[in-house]
Amino acid sequence: MSDTLQPIAVSIGDPAGIGPEILAKAWMRRREEALLPFFAIGDPRSIATVWDGPLRKIDDPADAVGCFDDALPIMEVEDAGEIEPGTPNMPGERCAIVSLEIAVGLARSGAASAIVTGPVSKAELYAIGFTHSGQTEFVAERCGVAPGNVAMMLAGPTLRTVCITTHVPLARVPELLTVDLVVSRCRVTARGLQRDFGIANPRIAIAGFNPHAGEGGALGREEIDILLPAIEQLREEGMDIVGPLAGDTMFHPRARAQYDVAICTYHDQALIPLKTLHFDEGVNVTLGLPIVRAAPDHGTAFGIAGRNMAEPGATIAAIRLAGEAAGRRATAQ
Amino acid sequence: MSDTLQPIAVSIGDPAGIGPEILAKAWMRRREEALLPFFAIGDPRSIATVWDGPLRKIDDPADAVGCFDDALPIMEVEDAGEIEPGTPNMPGERCAIVSLEIAVGLARSGAASAIVTGPVSKAELYAIGFTHSGQTEFVAERCGVAPGNVAMMLAGPTLRTVCITTHVPLARVPELLTVDLVVSRCRVTARGLQRDFGIANPRIAIAGFNPHAGEGGALGREEIDILLPAIEQLREEGMDIVGPLAGDTMFHPRARAQYDVAICTYHDQALIPLKTLHFDEGVNVTLGLPIVRAAPDHGTAFGIAGRNMAEPGATIAAIRLAGEAAGRRATAQ
Repeated sequence: MSDTLQPIAVSIGDPAGIGPEILAKAWMRRREEALLPFFAIGDPRSIATVWDGPLRKIDDPADAVGCFDDALPIMEVEDAGEIEPGTPNMPGERCAIVSLEIAVGLARSGAASAIVTGPVSKAELYAIGFTHSGQTEFVAERCGVAPGNVAMMLAGPTLRTVCITTHVPLARVPELLTVDLVVSRCRVTARGLQRDFGIANPRIAIAGFNPHAGEGGALGREEIDILLPAIEQLREEGMDIVGPLAGDTMFHPRARAQYDVAICTYHDQALIPLKTLHFDEGVNVTLGLPIVRAAPDHGTAFGIAGRNMAEPGATIAAIRLAGEAAGRRATAQ
Repeated sequence: MSDTLQPIAVSIGDPAGIGPEILAKAWMRRREEALLPFFAIGDPRSIATVWDGPLRKIDDPADAVGCFDDALPIMEVEDAGEIEPGTPNMPGERCAIVSLEIAVGLARSGAASAIVTGPVSKAELYAIGFTHSGQTEFVAERCGVAPGNVAMMLAGPTLRTVCITTHVPLARVPELLTVDLVVSRCRVTARGLQRDFGIANPRIAIAGFNPHAGEGGALGREEIDILLPAIEQLREEGMDIVGPLAGDTMFHPRARAQYDVAICTYHDQALIPLKTLHFDEGVNVTLGLPIVRAAPDHGTAFGIAGRNMAEPGATIAAIRLAGEAAGRRATAQ
């Protein structure tokens, strides 16, 4: 399977964050982790600033395979400006976005089998005029997929969660939650689990929005007005789906054993349990795209950038997951 | 310490839930768990229906100490009507509330050193016209304390969380969050940790309301408009407090080691991490009351009631915690 796959493109993310360091560390563990060949996209100086290992500049992704054993291959994106770990700046943000865009293009053209995207800072991106709410939405648009037709999944060793709404103020979630959106996210999730994770009949659990899933309407009506009609519709389509479940009682070990994915109504409902359990190994996967996209589920961690303290576990998990998903898609074709 | 304390009053909760069973199981483990003497308040038939062990009816809490070794002492509250595990009814709900009220009265009078309250079903309580949003608010009112001046804390072996808002629709939280409420909950929490948990200088962490704690305002302004001013005010009072922290990254093991309690803006933000980590041993403690009140942090579990499947761990933890807190208060007097 790995012989037939193109290498995986990894955008470095913010050059002042921990992205350069964790990517170098992931490459150093390529053998014991049995990682498929991958290559970095970004400013080589961002890696050289925090790591003394071998870098190999490449122009063509295909060249990554031949040199991957000996050096970390990198496609150069210049103009990251002054690079100082922990201190983001505007050229660095622009470099991160250009790198992301190149990664998407290579995957769409088939030159890369999948993309893994390094951490960026949303606050810094917004400051340079980035109008997408996150990398997920940017990638979806570049792939020509409407935001409602992708799903952000967080995957850890014992839990997968999907956000129905993502990077929006929590107060806006009630107006954004609609039957159509819930149905769409669940369909995308079910198809993604089949196509990229090899789960033939995914078991889906939906979380309620309110405390105790609304207590029959006494603590809110989103369950009755939105979630239940969506569940009914999906069940009629043949989906194996339960809910809405009380958010607080669906993430302990016995509860998690009952489903393949928990569909959550807002960001923290999905991210709190995932990161509480799997902080150093959570992977963010975008389902519903024509390409495979995964990312380590953590931020730029400017506070520890350049101090050799960052854990590469989530990046390694993202690269592995991306490779497995790409392999499943290649086999299915 | 235990010699000087009155016994602990335990209201059974809904007679059709798992309350009767877990209380009997807790009593059976009284020796290995070294529990202080306690007594049940409720309809003895609810326990006898699911347990064949020795029950001893008492009229005076003081009598509980003498018989606790040999039998589970119980103060009888009649009129629970037909008792069928798993099938709640109106007489049962009324019995649960009367039992709770008696427990509060005994603790206020000093006849009981603390109260532990068994699980009730909010939906069932609302159906009989119960106008409080939960037992916590009911107990606060009976103790003459305004709802804003108590704090609901969830305590497990490796995490304590407090809810700023509790059993309300999530969409209403933005209007309910005020600087004054945040300040009040933090003060009550800090005092509670000092008085009942023996933590001289509590380290407090506040969670943001929005994803990523609002990303500097881009994802919501509750952090800027409400949480930050509250934190500033509390810091000026000398409180050791940090935040607002991103909710999703504050509950993994390294993060939890940095604080004694996480103050959360809404129910599920506090309950999801607690129950994900400590589902079978979480204790709900009401801080800010003139009496000590703890409860197992789970519901009636009607689905498994009467089937000998319920875990008494949380009830045992609640009884132990209540006894320790009562002991600290008695010593401090």
